Amino acid sequence: MKIAVIGATGYTGAELLRILSMHPRVEVSVLTSDSSAGKSIAQLYPHVRDIYKHTLQQADPAEIAKQADLAFVALPGGLSSGIVPGLIEAGLKVIDLGGDFRLPAPLYETWYKKQAPPVELQQQAVYGLSEWYAEEIAQANLITNPGCYPTATLLGLLPLVKNGLIELDSIVVDAKSGVSGAGKALSLNTHYPEINENLKAYKLGVHQHIPEIETQLARVAGEDVTISFTTHLVPMVRGILTTSYARLKDRWTTRDLLDLYQQVYEGATFVRIRPEGEFPATKEVATSNYCDIGLYVDERTRRVTVISVIDNLVKGASGQAVQNLNLMNGWDEATGLGFVPVYP
Amino acid sequence: MKIAVIGATGYTGAELLRILSMHPRVEVSVLTSDSSAGKSIAQLYPHVRDIYKHTLQQADPAEIAKQADLAFVALPGGLSSGIVPGLIEAGLKVIDLGGDFRLPAPLYETWYKKQAPPVELQQQAVYGLSEWYAEEIAQANLITNPGCYPTATLLGLLPLVKNGLIELDSIVVDAKSGVSGAGKALSLNTHYPEINENLKAYKLGVHQHIPEIETQLARVAGEDVTISFTTHLVPMVRGILTTSYARLKDRWTTRDLLDLYQQVYEGATFVRIRPEGEFPATKEVATSNYCDIGLYVDERTRRVTVISVIDNLVKGASGQAVQNLNLMNGWDEATGLGFVPVYP
Amino acid sequence: MKIAVIGATGYTGAELLRILSMHPRVEVSVLTSDSSAGKSIAQLYPHVRDIYKHTLQQADPAEIAKQADLAFVALPGGLSSGIVPGLIEAGLKVIDLGGDFRLPAPLYETWYKKQAPPVELQQQAVYGLSEWYAEEIAQANLITNPGCYPTATLLGLLPLVKNGLIELDSIVVDAKSGVSGAGKALSLNTHYPEINENLKAYKLGVHQHIPEIETQLARVAGEDVTISFTTHLVPMVRGILTTSYARLKDRWTTRDLLDLYQQVYEGATFVRIRPEGEFPATKEVATSNYCDIGLYVDERTRRVTVISVIDNLVKGASGQAVQNLNLMNGWDEATGLGFVPVYP
Amino acid sequence: MKIAVIGATGYTGAELLRILSMHPRVEVSVLTSDSSAGKSIAQLYPHVRDIYKHTLQQADPAEIAKQADLAFVALPGGLSSGIVPGLIEAGLKVIDLGGDFRLPAPLYETWYKKQAPPVELQQQAVYGLSEWYAEEIAQANLITNPGCYPTATLLGLLPLVKNGLIELDSIVVDAKSGVSGAGKALSLNTHYPEINENLKAYKLGVHQHIPEIETQLARVAGEDVTISFTTHLVPMVRGILTTSYARLKDRWTTRDLLDLYQQVYEGATFVRIRPEGEFPATKEVATSNYCDIGLYVDERTRRVTVISVIDNLVKGASGQAVQNLNLMNGWDEATGLGFVPVYP
Repeated sequence: MKIAVIGATGYTGAELLRILSMHPRVEVSVLTSDSSAGKSIAQLYPHVRDIYKHTLQQADPAEIAKQADLAFVALPGGLSSGIVPGLIEAGLKVIDLGGDFRLPAPLYETWYKKQAPPVELQQQAVYGLSEWYAEEIAQANLITNPGCYPTATLLGLLPLVKNGLIELDSIVVDAKSGVSGAGKALSLNTHYPEINENLKAYKLGVHQHIPEIETQLARVAGEDVTISFTTHLVPMVRGILTTSYARLKDRWTTRDLLDLYQQVYEGATFVRIRPEGEFPATKEVATSNYCDIGLYVDERTRRVTVISVIDNLVKGASGQAVQNLNLMNGWDEATGLGFVPVYP
Repeated sequence: MKIAVIGATGYTGAELLRILSMHPRVEVSVLTSDSSAGKSIAQLYPHVRDIYKHTLQQADPAEIAKQADLAFVALPGGLSSGIVPGLIEAGLKVIDLGGDFRLPAPLYETWYKKQAPPVELQQQAVYGLSEWYAEEIAQANLITNPGCYPTATLLGLLPLVKNGLIELDSIVVDAKSGVSGAGKALSLNTHYPEINENLKAYKLGVHQHIPEIETQLARVAGEDVTISFTTHLVPMVRGILTTSYARLKDRWTTRDLLDLYQQVYEGATFVRIRPEGEFPATKEVATSNYCDIGLYVDERTRRVTVISVIDNLVKGASGQAVQNLNLMNGWDEATGLGFVPVYP
Repeated sequence: MKIAVIGATGYTGAELLRILSMHPRVEVSVLTSDSSAGKSIAQLYPHVRDIYKHTLQQADPAEIAKQADLAFVALPGGLSSGIVPGLIEAGLKVIDLGGDFRLPAPLYETWYKKQAPPVELQQQAVYGLSEWYAEEIAQANLITNPGCYPTATLLGLLPLVKNGLIELDSIVVDAKSGVSGAGKALSLNTHYPEINENLKAYKLGVHQHIPEIETQLARVAGEDVTISFTTHLVPMVRGILTTSYARLKDRWTTRDLLDLYQQVYEGATFVRIRPEGEFPATKEVATSNYCDIGLYVDERTRRVTVISVIDNLVKGASGQAVQNLNLMNGWDEATGLGFVPVYP
Repeated sequence: MKIAVIGATGYTGAELLRILSMHPRVEVSVLTSDSSAGKSIAQLYPHVRDIYKHTLQQADPAEIAKQADLAFVALPGGLSSGIVPGLIEAGLKVIDLGGDFRLPAPLYETWYKKQAPPVELQQQAVYGLSEWYAEEIAQANLITNPGCYPTATLLGLLPLVKNGLIELDSIVVDAKSGVSGAGKALSLNTHYPEINENLKAYKLGVHQHIPEIETQLARVAGEDVTISFTTHLVPMVRGILTTSYARLKDRWTTRDLLDLYQQVYEGATFVRIRPEGEFPATKEVATSNYCDIGLYVDERTRRVTVISVIDNLVKGASGQAVQNLNLMNGWDEATGLGFVPVYP
């Protein structure tokens, strides 16, 4: 199967290159970058020297369709909607790693402050949370790959919501991310001396992942859900850890909830439930497609705390995208993703 | 005024040396370390070469009383109660930076799993949260200096609790700390390759700062308070950031709450309230005695989120201890503490 | 082929697990750890949960020989010589990642301050610098895998020495390493607060990699070589960068030397020579088996500066060990090692 | 004494604010920033909130002269020469922290690729290496503050050169710096995900500090000196460590050389010579004005290795500038600089 990576020079693009080079059933045939077209990828990313010898192309859907069967679109926010319609029309399957297709138009315009993509296409896009929507994904032509924070948060909370165990208005999600989540664009907020030995909260109340999480929780809950959600920037390159708090409707023990999670994720290669008393660290999933989950029930407050960790560039972006590629093709979901976390 | 530092070779001890060297009204006359007695402090800490020429002594209260008027006790957990009674008896004033005297005996024994110090002495100890208990501190012979997490949390939450603005059973505190908070004792949990590029939660439900915070909140609320509190270890040396969530009883705007905070902390040199839309980062207070606070009211959930940052070794330990020294002596609280945060 | 990892719980052991899990021609059948025997590997390393389900065993050569064909020995310094003779005698092939067999006995005892292993065995051990000694490696029963600093240094300097281009008494090697090179043993020197935001030189004049490099340079030069070599600890987990300086006998241009290096390493999968004006960074080889080399000739001083980078745990230890495994078996040297550096 | 800081929003400007706020004999009266004129400094640097309440001004020499006696110029490279003549003419004393005045015009134009400032003014500028040129500094109207790398390198090498102990053509300087040395301007080279967990060499053979060091070595040697000098970027915010290698003309022991260094720097508050076998780490001088030096003589190679560390923003920039301010005014060189390194 021939693959195009649209926007190969950002971090999610680079991560796709890393992952796809080890995938036994695909060949990367096209790399595009509008700003660096004509250069070799190794000029921009010396780490792929000798591994990728491609020259970067302009992103022209008709040309891409001649050379590839499926396109990963890894463009900065708001740019996917410019090219995805053309790619679909040209007959390609598309996995979009941006946020353009994740929300219904009115929510999108409210939170992203941009014009929404064509409604029809947005409605046709399947939300690619692999462990929860594998069947729909298998049928899709257009996948809208989940955001990094939503992936960690939803994998951690959906078992509770699905089973009606928590008070829906009690959810507080405190989320922390490494800096690669902010991408490759330069900003004082990601300038090394500003970030190292520093920790800060950002985008309080306005982060565009809030409506994405709420939409997906509501879909499973069958009713509206509103959450408190705060994001923090942590001085590390990779990793997301979400700490989610919710009030249990009934008294559950930690052990019983862990059993429930084990059942919910039975057969899911990439979700690992930790034993009682053990909580995952981001490094324990680094560079891999795993989402590890630990939880704790505080009997004093009747709240459950769920700790969920991913590598934001893998399960939070490019890895899950490849997992979705596998599902779309009827391959084992772990094909080409069987690498062990890098530790330490 | 002559000062003894009991336990000068841990990180809070070293930080006392840094701060006290710039204090215009004191002289450090005694440094003790039971494990390194006989060595010079510069052998252990080359950074104070030429600045401190002291030889480390064994900690003998009678000897210390001959050479000093006040002792800072900066010993590992559980060791203060062994020496503080002797120091008090020998006529010294004492500021204890450990946790031994912070909790009533039953709570102490439940959470610390150690024998509590003499009840009488514990009851005599004044909780040294400088901005809230300056008058009691001024009269005290024994200060129990607050924990690092409690300092950041309480300075952030007490204005709400004091004014009865929040539902007391709705408090969730998500706390993050740099690694120096774990001290100088070696552990795989603080081994560099395990920590760098890593983020993890720890001590869920069993952190001994939970009852300290609850006790102090209850004291101001006039009723019992139970909170959810999770601590995280962040790959940086210094800094604590607490993100506290609580449901407001009434509708308040962010701006009105900020005005309230400004009033509460009027005249407090070391608490800085940030303007609307601005949230403090740990680096903005690093190496200084400031606690900076920002907040945000989410009208959708009626929750207030309070962001509070300190340097765990300064306002969270040695800096606040010196602030208390100043209050005990009737000096301006900022004496010797007027250093600007190091940035970047 | 069945593989035993002796000393599976150190960092080089863990890295072997990561790499071997992706190797198509081997099966890891035995993991040993004397200190953690009886525990599952996932208790010590949660990152391999679900991937390795082994229980750690005591290291008993006879038992190991029943279950495995080849053993990687990844023990702390000085312990290999205790077990390697038994493993060899039991009929296993051995790749030793420690330093015990790298030096002739007199040099070993001088620099390591320990008793040397049996002379006969040491003389039989083949120095596993894969790109330079592939033929000997293919015939060996016992490989002594090179040290991390020597690997980076030798790959960078040997082309010059081999071709007689430099004054042998002019070599200065300034070496820098991430902290994982110091292993998993706890020490104040690797305690997070001591290391982060810090840079230091260590072991001046006494580092045991000095005689290893000199021995290998002399072997190629055909005469004694003495170098100046200084090691530094850099606040990062992985990566070694060596900056080597030497006076050229004749006037060479940067470009001509680069051409020479290209020829020397023609066909070597894991050595990448950078184009003129480009110098490799450690992150560009991180988690991979590459050694990237850049160089610069300063016509003002007639010195060449060679920059060489590796991941100390991969090409500097476990990756090169697997490369040697491949060579010993007549497989392509890159078998199971074809992973792209993780970037960023 | 009234002080103007020209270019207050860069990192050396911010560091001047931190240091000067604790200086007992000066008052900061003017802060300028052409790009942020009209804003308050606290908008750009929240860490100085409540400490500095200044509004940033345009840099107009005539206006500045009305409000200040001396100006620190902390502008990006090449901009000092535009404003310094006007400031001098307006009667101000000037300490320039940029590189514009450090080199004779021909060298400047060769290495900086910019037009040199007026020759007369350049010749009048005194090179502000405080420990070596205190008398000239005391008489100067214009100080050209040394570069960060030259400060560390020269303090380490000058005692050897001055006493004629080394072969001048044998000098190799391997220099490493934290990222704040690259300033506040955004660049992919200082983007957090590119730098953290990374180490690289840069500007081989073209760094503009090469001619600065050579010029100053030659001045003391009385003959031309050419060195090999390589700079590396280390994943930390602050700190420079230089490792300098040179061949001794005669056999010296480490101890004898240390004695010599002690004599050379007798009475110098900010140079600390470490005892035999101890080598300084950057953190041991962090945020302070110290330069700590350790050295080692390798009898095998007859080379001496000198390790020299500074905080690049303090002794390497703003701290030494204030030290020069003190010398210009006949105050103790340590006035306002008596702060202990922040450790850990």
